[in-house]
Amino acid sequence: MPPTQSIGTPVREIETPALIVDLDVMEKNLTLMAKRLEGTGVRLRAHAKTHKSPWLASKQVALGAVGVCCQKVSEAEVMVEGGIENVLVSSEVTAASKLRRLAALARHANLMVVVDHPQGVSMLAEAVTAAGAEIGVLVDVDVGQGRCGVAPGAPAVELARRVEAARGLELKGIQAYQGKAQHVDGFVERREVYADAVARMRETVDAFEAAGLPLEVRSGGGTGSWRWDAESGVLNELQAGSYLFMDSHYRSIGGEDSDIYDDFQPSLFVLTTVVSAPGPGHVVMDAGHKALSSDSGLAPCLELEGAVHARASDEHGVLELSPASRRPEIGETLLFQPSHCDPTINLYDVYHGVRGGMEEGVLEAVIPVAARGCVW
Amino acid sequence: MPPTQSIGTPVREIETPALIVDLDVMEKNLTLMAKRLEGTGVRLRAHAKTHKSPWLASKQVALGAVGVCCQKVSEAEVMVEGGIENVLVSSEVTAASKLRRLAALARHANLMVVVDHPQGVSMLAEAVTAAGAEIGVLVDVDVGQGRCGVAPGAPAVELARRVEAARGLELKGIQAYQGKAQHVDGFVERREVYADAVARMRETVDAFEAAGLPLEVRSGGGTGSWRWDAESGVLNELQAGSYLFMDSHYRSIGGEDSDIYDDFQPSLFVLTTVVSAPGPGHVVMDAGHKALSSDSGLAPCLELEGAVHARASDEHGVLELSPASRRPEIGETLLFQPSHCDPTINLYDVYHGVRGGMEEGVLEAVIPVAARGCVW
Repeated sequence: MPPTQSIGTPVREIETPALIVDLDVMEKNLTLMAKRLEGTGVRLRAHAKTHKSPWLASKQVALGAVGVCCQKVSEAEVMVEGGIENVLVSSEVTAASKLRRLAALARHANLMVVVDHPQGVSMLAEAVTAAGAEIGVLVDVDVGQGRCGVAPGAPAVELARRVEAARGLELKGIQAYQGKAQHVDGFVERREVYADAVARMRETVDAFEAAGLPLEVRSGGGTGSWRWDAESGVLNELQAGSYLFMDSHYRSIGGEDSDIYDDFQPSLFVLTTVVSAPGPGHVVMDAGHKALSSDSGLAPCLELEGAVHARASDEHGVLELSPASRRPEIGETLLFQPSHCDPTINLYDVYHGVRGGMEEGVLEAVIPVAARGCVW
Repeated sequence: MPPTQSIGTPVREIETPALIVDLDVMEKNLTLMAKRLEGTGVRLRAHAKTHKSPWLASKQVALGAVGVCCQKVSEAEVMVEGGIENVLVSSEVTAASKLRRLAALARHANLMVVVDHPQGVSMLAEAVTAAGAEIGVLVDVDVGQGRCGVAPGAPAVELARRVEAARGLELKGIQAYQGKAQHVDGFVERREVYADAVARMRETVDAFEAAGLPLEVRSGGGTGSWRWDAESGVLNELQAGSYLFMDSHYRSIGGEDSDIYDDFQPSLFVLTTVVSAPGPGHVVMDAGHKALSSDSGLAPCLELEGAVHARASDEHGVLELSPASRRPEIGETLLFQPSHCDPTINLYDVYHGVRGGMEEGVLEAVIPVAARGCVW
């Protein structure tokens, strides 16, 4: 855990590298999503894999979210312990030890999990009945991502029949998530790719209806597709996570009227300190791969015009300066925007929640990333 | 923290994704390095940024290591708390709050830190005298990496004079680390690049000797250059870290007689579980960016001939199967080799230390990654 820092500490005096949340902006994103979904028939099931915080999940629930998604049983354990009562485990669970944990947790919360294979159905039913528990089940349908999931239509119906027939499992509907479509560049291009996903969802919903199968929950979508999820008439739960914070990867996909996707505003930053300025050409920051994930590219620096985050090592980032760039002082702080919020958050034990902006603001809340490292 | 798992648990029943250390192989690497440095005049100052574990650092010290390096003050705090008494902070420290912590820690351990700028010398001296402490100082020399460090020769001497003149600071010598040279592909090519670094080290050592400056400590080098560090006659401390575990990035640089760099053997793995096998072309693992760092490429799978780790998302990895690949079962475990050990280890709270190999072995020790997340 980082050293305790006093509430009221000026933002630029927080120990670096630090994960900073602009609470004013984050709260706007929270309420904006709640308002946008009002009256659409689609409820938010916020994805807790992004924030990993029951504190933030409870804010989402207070604004009308039906509950959260978790990718891992360990995340679900943290959310239930933190008071979140309605949790969908949105990844397949296929290990005996994890199925035991899932079944035990189902006795203490309103829990659902996804399946995409007959063997998964059998293993789940065995664990749940052994625990004397019950669990809600969604058939996970591959609507174009090419990752997990059973094929749409008839194969999904066939798997649903197996769920219905199994003891301890209550079929609730489908999960239909197209992750790749979330990040297609260009509004029009993204809408087209996503329309294909919606067609596969609709095919499956029609097949379920024709077969008389339950569709109480139809869960999917995300921050990049929320508008079409809300309009589609197919989903009734939206699994958005990144909308709360945004990142440079999401910003780059483009919006309806702009090159920048600006449906939500960036609220998450990493504060760093210049540790070395050895020559005119570059400066070195105290943030490398262990402070800023690079799976979506190196995080952009927000404060030094003309400077490029050119390379990173474990604990250092190198900013190459253009001839026009101001050369920062040793000890100066610089803000970066995470390129991918989820794995960057997972590097930290706490968020530093700041009120009043990135210059004059002060530390208002130290928020645990309670499910950090919960990959198992 | 992951759920406690009983000592004696078979390796393939450990909850996944899990960081696994083959203790037999790791201990061989430990003793091999100690033997290789015997009689060379170069002592190991193992880099604790790799393992982040006082438990492992103490094994290195027991085999003759003079102490450890840390990249961050927070890492140094964890090492001192864990009983390691001799610590070099091998990165510049330039924030007032961190300098206070460093000075306070210097009252409880044999501490050194590096400087590369007159402003850094002033800030350090101020913090150390305010705390009534003393600290050892190395002049950090850029011997070709182009990151931190003062230029070799005269500029290094000039900075050393400032250190000598400052209250509370005891000049101990130089740090001369060439990180980029560690990973040059090809034994001959690497030797050539490294020879250039050694020349810059020698220039600086000669200039220090001519100026009558202390050179009690001459620290640098790493896993990729240990042989030339030991032969160079310039360094007397080796900052190797990865030799303990190895990773696919180091393995790929090539050895003296082989395409594989095999001076040390891989002892670190990530155990995963197949969560989905939706078609003939691919299977999906429960390990993504939050379980295997990808800054040095996607981690190779060690167990499924012809399968390629083709893509990853936050919590999933996709293995593309060749027509000849065996298709693993849902629930089956598969081992991956980290592509870059340091940032992968930093994702986990514990190592699972296994004895007896990856098939028949059992869990022998749960070793905390005590300095995980210590970036500040």
